Amino acid sequence: MLNFQKTKIDDFAEIWRIYKNVIKNGDSYLDNLAKTDKNYAKQKWLNSSSINIIAKLDNKVVGFYSLRNNYKDYGSHVANGSYIVNPDFRQKGFGKKIALHSLDEARKAGYKAMQFNFVVATNIAAIKLWQSVGFKIIGTSPKSYQHQGLKKLVDNHIMHIFL
Amino acid sequence: MLNFQKTKIDDFAEIWRIYKNVIKNGDSYLDNLAKTDKNYAKQKWLNSSSINIIAKLDNKVVGFYSLRNNYKDYGSHVANGSYIVNPDFRQKGFGKKIALHSLDEARKAGYKAMQFNFVVATNIAAIKLWQSVGFKIIGTSPKSYQHQGLKKLVDNHIMHIFL
Repeated sequence: MLNFQKTKIDDFAEIWRIYKNVIKNGDSYLDNLAKTDKNYAKQKWLNSSSINIIAKLDNKVVGFYSLRNNYKDYGSHVANGSYIVNPDFRQKGFGKKIALHSLDEARKAGYKAMQFNFVVATNIAAIKLWQSVGFKIIGTSPKSYQHQGLKKLVDNHIMHIFL
Repeated sequence: MLNFQKTKIDDFAEIWRIYKNVIKNGDSYLDNLAKTDKNYAKQKWLNSSSINIIAKLDNKVVGFYSLRNNYKDYGSHVANGSYIVNPDFRQKGFGKKIALHSLDEARKAGYKAMQFNFVVATNIAAIKLWQSVGFKIIGTSPKSYQHQGLKKLVDNHIMHIFL
């Protein structure tokens, strides 16, 4: 049974280790590890103006996510989210549980919709996961991601769900 | 003949006056004037990490714009832009001249494309202007703008051009 809590500073060492491990591939996140420092990561996953949640199983970190306004002021009823699933816990259905938890949290916080501005089009697992919980692709940004594995520009999808 | 220069601190009083005048309507920008202070505006239109340009005619401010990365790191080859045209100079073809100038500046800065994440779907003048210089609508975010004039949620288009 996954245990969801707010991220705490004590979680940061493990968050930083997993985050680095995931972004180093340059196949699904915008972050270039060489340009990413601890302070940026701490701000991203622990700041107090976002909803930052960590999911654990037997005290091991399965994943974590961060919700915030997708846009300011007159667009602030739409949430945006960032997610990391620990590679050690992939393909076990945990991603979907974390996704559903985040939709509930966004709803509780009063958001009316959630939007991702950047889902790498070659990241089929992520696209299928988000579609399985109800997201739709509402647009595609052509050649907007510098895929490090494929060594070429690939498309990004914009994905959206009403809450 | 429009004269284009980098924005300078001496321009800020007029930038602030025009910016406030435009965003107060809540029909095309995300900013809620009541939550927008001078420092935010100064950062937005004068910061040194963006390309900030002002267009003048006989020393009067016709408009100004700001270019920056649409996304970080592996998405940083795509530019994003914000634009304000002084209402006193609308419907005279200046918007298009400013748009074309910004595309040149983005190209010179090495950007491969430009994307707007948020063009209010009821802002027909803006959409036509951007289409007239080659932008395409690549997606539509449903009900993501709190239109203050219409007092309802309206859609936003995502617009894109290769440079």
